[in-house]
Amino acid sequence: MDDSETYLREAIALAYANAEKGGRPFGAVIVRDGRIIARGVNEILASGDPTSHAELNAIRAASSVLGSPDLAGCAVFASGHPCPMCMAAMRLAGIAAVTYAYSNEDGEPYGLSTAPIYDDLAKPFAEQTMNIRHLPVRLDGKSSLYADWRQRQG
Amino acid sequence: MDDSETYLREAIALAYANAEKGGRPFGAVIVRDGRIIARGVNEILASGDPTSHAELNAIRAASSVLGSPDLAGCAVFASGHPCPMCMAAMRLAGIAAVTYAYSNEDGEPYGLSTAPIYDDLAKPFAEQTMNIRHLPVRLDGKSSLYADWRQRQG
Repeated sequence: MDDSETYLREAIALAYANAEKGGRPFGAVIVRDGRIIARGVNEILASGDPTSHAELNAIRAASSVLGSPDLAGCAVFASGHPCPMCMAAMRLAGIAAVTYAYSNEDGEPYGLSTAPIYDDLAKPFAEQTMNIRHLPVRLDGKSSLYADWRQRQG
Repeated sequence: MDDSETYLREAIALAYANAEKGGRPFGAVIVRDGRIIARGVNEILASGDPTSHAELNAIRAASSVLGSPDLAGCAVFASGHPCPMCMAAMRLAGIAAVTYAYSNEDGEPYGLSTAPIYDDLAKPFAEQTMNIRHLPVRLDGKSSLYADWRQRQG
């Protein structure tokens, strides 16, 4: 059996266990150098935090274990297709590989697909359902925010 | 002066203050019924958590204030163009409006643009730089994960 399947089975087992506790059916593990270094489950219902997805929680746990926001070399194994937030979070963390077991098609009949959000976010900003506005406000008497930051780095 | 400008100035002031403390130059506020109910700054360097963006932290704070993951009726005001993770998080939380002051074009010379990540994530999964794999693993002797969850919902 491929190691990937072992990691996915662990992520799925976490999802079943979370559902048994009344949570949503999502689990994820993060693997580095052939070892699971972090786990996460969906805790939205328990925490009231809408960002508390399995993959995001696993990323936060892995960064805590490694003491770094840079998770290069890590791979994510998720019970379900990651949503756009979690997919982008992986990218920000330098994670280059993700494997999932249940697809958005599997989730659709149960209201567990994020395909509609993917579709919307792929549109040009002006065509998305969210109202996205750019107002180039600046604070008076300050150098530009980013130039100010760069200067502090130097 | 439009209220939106007031909220943006607050977000930008948070970003300057965060940079002064050694953090990255990003701040955000969440407004509901004409009142700022939550604030956030980028805490990646302080926390080591790659998901600790200003908008995500503000969303988590707002859900804590409201005691709910549903932030419908809230609007986000961010110092800089939200990244794909934060934009998707807003969508998941039911937030329908976001306004930002500094654009990705403003950030690009300083390495503070997330436009390249937007471009990559907009591609079909097979063409993205991340390796995204679907392995339809199932646990033996269990009903399907999502059907199991639905059944528990009653």
